[in-house]
Amino acid sequence: MPADEETATRRGANALWETLRAGGVEACFANPGTSEMHLVAALDDGPGVRPVLVLAEPVATGAADGFARVTGRPGAALLHLGPGLANGWSNLHNARRAHSPVVAVVGDFPDRHRALDPPLGSDLDGLAASVGGWYRRAASGATLGTDTADALRAAYGPPGRPAVLAVASDAAGQPCDEPVAAVVAPPARPVDAAVVEAAASARGPRAALLLGGPALTRRGLELATRVAATSGARLLMESFPAIVDHGAGTVSLERVNYVPEFAQAQLAEVDELVLVGSREPVGPFDYEGVAGRLVRADTRVSTLAAPGDDALGALEALVERLGAPPVRPAPLGPPERPTGALTPASLCAAVGATLDEGTVVVDESITSGLHLFEATSASPAHRITTLTGQALGYGLPCALGAAVGSAGRVLALVADGSFLYSAPALWSMAREGLDVTVVVLVNRRYAILEWERHRLGAMAEGSASASLMDLSRPDLDYVALARGFGVPAARATTAEELGDRLEASAAEPGPHLVEAVFAPR
Amino acid sequence: MPADEETATRRGANALWETLRAGGVEACFANPGTSEMHLVAALDDGPGVRPVLVLAEPVATGAADGFARVTGRPGAALLHLGPGLANGWSNLHNARRAHSPVVAVVGDFPDRHRALDPPLGSDLDGLAASVGGWYRRAASGATLGTDTADALRAAYGPPGRPAVLAVASDAAGQPCDEPVAAVVAPPARPVDAAVVEAAASARGPRAALLLGGPALTRRGLELATRVAATSGARLLMESFPAIVDHGAGTVSLERVNYVPEFAQAQLAEVDELVLVGSREPVGPFDYEGVAGRLVRADTRVSTLAAPGDDALGALEALVERLGAPPVRPAPLGPPERPTGALTPASLCAAVGATLDEGTVVVDESITSGLHLFEATSASPAHRITTLTGQALGYGLPCALGAAVGSAGRVLALVADGSFLYSAPALWSMAREGLDVTVVVLVNRRYAILEWERHRLGAMAEGSASASLMDLSRPDLDYVALARGFGVPAARATTAEELGDRLEASAAEPGPHLVEAVFAPR
Repeated sequence: MPADEETATRRGANALWETLRAGGVEACFANPGTSEMHLVAALDDGPGVRPVLVLAEPVATGAADGFARVTGRPGAALLHLGPGLANGWSNLHNARRAHSPVVAVVGDFPDRHRALDPPLGSDLDGLAASVGGWYRRAASGATLGTDTADALRAAYGPPGRPAVLAVASDAAGQPCDEPVAAVVAPPARPVDAAVVEAAASARGPRAALLLGGPALTRRGLELATRVAATSGARLLMESFPAIVDHGAGTVSLERVNYVPEFAQAQLAEVDELVLVGSREPVGPFDYEGVAGRLVRADTRVSTLAAPGDDALGALEALVERLGAPPVRPAPLGPPERPTGALTPASLCAAVGATLDEGTVVVDESITSGLHLFEATSASPAHRITTLTGQALGYGLPCALGAAVGSAGRVLALVADGSFLYSAPALWSMAREGLDVTVVVLVNRRYAILEWERHRLGAMAEGSASASLMDLSRPDLDYVALARGFGVPAARATTAEELGDRLEASAAEPGPHLVEAVFAPR
Repeated sequence: MPADEETATRRGANALWETLRAGGVEACFANPGTSEMHLVAALDDGPGVRPVLVLAEPVATGAADGFARVTGRPGAALLHLGPGLANGWSNLHNARRAHSPVVAVVGDFPDRHRALDPPLGSDLDGLAASVGGWYRRAASGATLGTDTADALRAAYGPPGRPAVLAVASDAAGQPCDEPVAAVVAPPARPVDAAVVEAAASARGPRAALLLGGPALTRRGLELATRVAATSGARLLMESFPAIVDHGAGTVSLERVNYVPEFAQAQLAEVDELVLVGSREPVGPFDYEGVAGRLVRADTRVSTLAAPGDDALGALEALVERLGAPPVRPAPLGPPERPTGALTPASLCAAVGATLDEGTVVVDESITSGLHLFEATSASPAHRITTLTGQALGYGLPCALGAAVGSAGRVLALVADGSFLYSAPALWSMAREGLDVTVVVLVNRRYAILEWERHRLGAMAEGSASASLMDLSRPDLDYVALARGFGVPAARATTAEELGDRLEASAAEPGPHLVEAVFAPR
């Protein structure tokens, strides 16, 4: 065979990228190694999947999740063997909890080499299964197109989920002549009329709709508002939505509180809870004497739409069943720029007062961002993503992926305790010239853990346990870190300064970081 | 019961720390969350396990490994749920390949809460099993002392391994009145006389001993040198030793090459290979047309001591069997300070010329450190640890743990491609005031991947695949990053500058970072 025919062979690696591209994958966040070299080389043959180099795998999987959340199309990550997948596991966990369609391609050894137990060999099958989505080890290059299409189908769901496809290094280089399957997002599971009828009986102030997933889009919120205005039911939002339309023109929902005792107080008067694209809320942790369920034991919980069901169709059917007329949300006065000391409240107010229309806000603010939703309810229309799976380190990667997937600016609010889990995402933002503003919320402690530690009793200053909550000694310098990654950065220590920094960053293309240092307690 | 009696109750968490301390655990590298609060609180009751806060889990597990490598006693890490274990998985993989005794304590939900599938819930059992060491979920606080002792026994081996102990948050707070078991390192498996007899027949230049594990201690090297001097066999060292005594007074061994073709050439003349504390070497990856085994198919491979066997005892028996007299290693001239451009060779020479006695060198230099062992063979006696499992991000954490466990300075050589996987280790070095010098080897590319990519054919400049090998655009500023973490830092661009920086850092307590920028190709 002449050399030029040899090089023209379509390989498994080509089939993989072509199938991903045809299935909606526009970018792949990659941290490849030797076992992925056929896959990397095949990127040079087209078909137009944008490779985005990341310096560590938590960034790859978190960015794939962020891309999926803002676009609704699959995000993709390219990882290296068991350790690469392990490093990306936590953000796949967050993606699973967000129902994000994500395809993680993991290069692996051929069977003959894995049998030798080489240094990088590990129990990849067990590890991949523990992600809790879909997993397959591709058997050969000849069927790699089919395997990739199946991975895409699994990722789309419904509901969306992470799909892990292990590809042996030799398989990626083997010939493949399968046609490209164009996998599309499947329809959501249809609405059951009986379920709509049941939901229609949930009326009055002791009934509530708990919205999640697609019910938190502009359309879903509009429909739910009409339902509530007619039925008299309360509207609630799940604690950690994957992405929610927010600000001008949408109703701002009451969010189920993170703290179980507060959530239980919030839900104490709810006799009937209707789930719309959400799951029944449970507390994040087990506490002595506190139930894990957040509704009362005798609250009736019913499901209008489970995750993966057609929540919008269900709300439309419910609107029709109730004959609920359109509702115009009450216009809110424009938020005012705060002044004075930088506190969690004034920080959120500064965000609310400076937010541009179309911004995607990535919220990993933990304790410091409690006021965020309230503070941005009158801002121009925007979207907010949250820490669905509560595994730290989602914020910066999600912002990277969201910026690759969306036209507007991305604003990431990241607590200092979370920042270091995936800080190298900053470098990829700089490399790709993405319009991302990162605000690091600096309180120099794991405030949420101090709070949890105090549940168990007093904690002496200077004790071993107190030392494990304390992020000072030495103070981290986030401005220096950002510059190290090639991102311009500045510090803000007052609400005015923060507002100025936010406005300036929005006016200048490319990434920026603001270190927001709270006033001492 | 009066309040003071209540607070005096000994809990499962107390039993855990007391048992760990009695079993040789002196420090615990911790990145705890809510589910570990009983364990954190119990640190305040003694018994003297030093908690070292780390900002991300790869640092926790890598530091536990580093501590274990330099002390021979168990390293410990405290992690938070599935995501915490996943983040620490890769460095547990490296610890497994180093046969390091490591205990990873993972806080978990009680069964009743896990059944509710809370946001942080995941398949922790499957994930922990995939680490490939020992795993147990502690059933209750009453038996947590026994569980901890069993984890220690599993970690000690022989051979050493990672032991993962999941502890439900409620179990840690339950009463426990078990006595403290003082687990000690078990004896290595004894020597089989027949095996010694077989090894005694391996003679002449076409026989070779491949040393690993305890055979790479000063004593092991001394014994092996005597064997070789009498038998005429070659002495080889495994490619990635967990820790090896090196420099003045030891023989510098020929290391099995990382590149399989080179290793195969190196081993082509070996008709008989005797494994002494090592495994038969295999190539890191599968390449078309290259065997995964590195010895010839007809080479006789025998085992004098497998990992976990008494390699020193076996060498002693072999010395006795051969009547091999002591050998004095040839004294080498002191290494000279290099001058001129900074290259991989001059960098290693500068290290060799400035190394203080007793230093622990942590080598994650990848392609840039090929000359390290040769360059430090005449330096004052030191030890070198290497990347046993080839999962990137081991260097900085291992240096942290090694510094907590050893009296002398630690010198970490970390390639720029590896640095960002676990950079927050720098902050813990600053916080603990540890004498660590970090040299970042900056070639601004994944050189090893370029090399692998070229195996598949030409790679066009500016192509998608070339972009995934390139760490410039923008250049990372490691000096700024180090300062951000609170570590003083400087840049070196010539061999003289690097030598000066290394000497200056060794003369001043606390951590230092040197960004060593190679001359452009």
